[in-house]
Amino acid sequence: MKTNHTAAKSEIAMARRPVLVVGIGGPTASGKTSLAKILAEKYREMGVCLMDQDSYYLDRGHLTSKQREAVNYDEPYAIDHNLFRSHLESLLIGQVVEKPVYDFVTHTRTRRFQMLRPQGLIILEGIHCFWDGRARALMGLKVYVDADPDLRFIRRLQRDMGERGRSTESVIAQYVNTVRPMQKRYVEPFKDRADLVVKTTESLGRAAGELIHAVAEHFSVRFPRSKMLVA
Amino acid sequence: MKTNHTAAKSEIAMARRPVLVVGIGGPTASGKTSLAKILAEKYREMGVCLMDQDSYYLDRGHLTSKQREAVNYDEPYAIDHNLFRSHLESLLIGQVVEKPVYDFVTHTRTRRFQMLRPQGLIILEGIHCFWDGRARALMGLKVYVDADPDLRFIRRLQRDMGERGRSTESVIAQYVNTVRPMQKRYVEPFKDRADLVVKTTESLGRAAGELIHAVAEHFSVRFPRSKMLVA
Repeated sequence: MKTNHTAAKSEIAMARRPVLVVGIGGPTASGKTSLAKILAEKYREMGVCLMDQDSYYLDRGHLTSKQREAVNYDEPYAIDHNLFRSHLESLLIGQVVEKPVYDFVTHTRTRRFQMLRPQGLIILEGIHCFWDGRARALMGLKVYVDADPDLRFIRRLQRDMGERGRSTESVIAQYVNTVRPMQKRYVEPFKDRADLVVKTTESLGRAAGELIHAVAEHFSVRFPRSKMLVA
Repeated sequence: MKTNHTAAKSEIAMARRPVLVVGIGGPTASGKTSLAKILAEKYREMGVCLMDQDSYYLDRGHLTSKQREAVNYDEPYAIDHNLFRSHLESLLIGQVVEKPVYDFVTHTRTRRFQMLRPQGLIILEGIHCFWDGRARALMGLKVYVDADPDLRFIRRLQRDMGERGRSTESVIAQYVNTVRPMQKRYVEPFKDRADLVVKTTESLGRAAGELIHAVAEHFSVRFPRSKMLVA
């Protein structure tokens, strides 16, 4: 009974504590990860929990390597939304969770984990961040990060060629065949449902400024007595 | 006096003859050249004159090779709009013109020419097709060809790497540094001033169908007795 008692105490403690969940979604190479990191750094002293959805890809250990190659990793079904959401719910009731560490080469979960602690600011980040309606309902602020599509493609091309040593043609093929159509179908429709749309076409810094301002506003409106709203 | 007399006769003859000038402009790799060729082929038996603006780049023979490298070839000032327009005016009064043949390696005009004959359909095609207001005023139909920017960049990248043997990084650098900013400033503002906007994102064939339909409509409205309007 001790565990339940502790959990109940945590829930009460959390209820008194202002927690803001910020979802950061949007298409490939729009600047989501950079903005999430800037926001996390801004509120570091207050305590921030950053949950990247990329760590929650489904484990494909039961598939042959040929089957793994055939998987469409750009559709929302490639992500373990149930685990992602249940971790978010745990954080919200004050529990520590073990975020999986994913191996993108073998498309499997490693045996390692990363501890995520409950904090006053929880940042969720990923292309399909808004896909699961139950996770979406827990977000206090939904931010859609966008940039002109030509620049996004160029950023992705440079990243994939530089960091992952891929060829121009293979990056183009994946983009045209799966990345782009999946985004049109599953990502862009959420743009109109976001609370804030920031564009990084011209400047990442300006977009970061808008995001931080919105978060500070949100804290000051919802938790007027909180001391953590220095934008 | 014979020349003047002949010119005057031609002008009268042309005044009786229905002539339509179609301008086809829009950003890089949107499909302008392909659409111009499809349209020219469609009306080939009637007689078509196709003027591509790429042949009218300014001759840089007076510059050193270092100076030629420093030129911004993506701004409208890189094109000899005066010669382009005067050729159009000559065609409209029934005169044959000598279109320059450009050498893109040395950025100079060759000593060769291509004869353009006056025809009932004159198609002008080029990124900066709508830039010169005096040429624009002579167009009966202004068509802006567009496509999603990511796909346009990919088409340009594939074309420049395939046909011109360029590296991915050099195509990206030119696109980001000059192609894209020049388009934003000098090409996209004309989108709202076009009579027709066709998009080739999904299908070139459908865009061609819309273009041909608009040209046929135009002929039938302006020249109801003309026999050349089979769409």
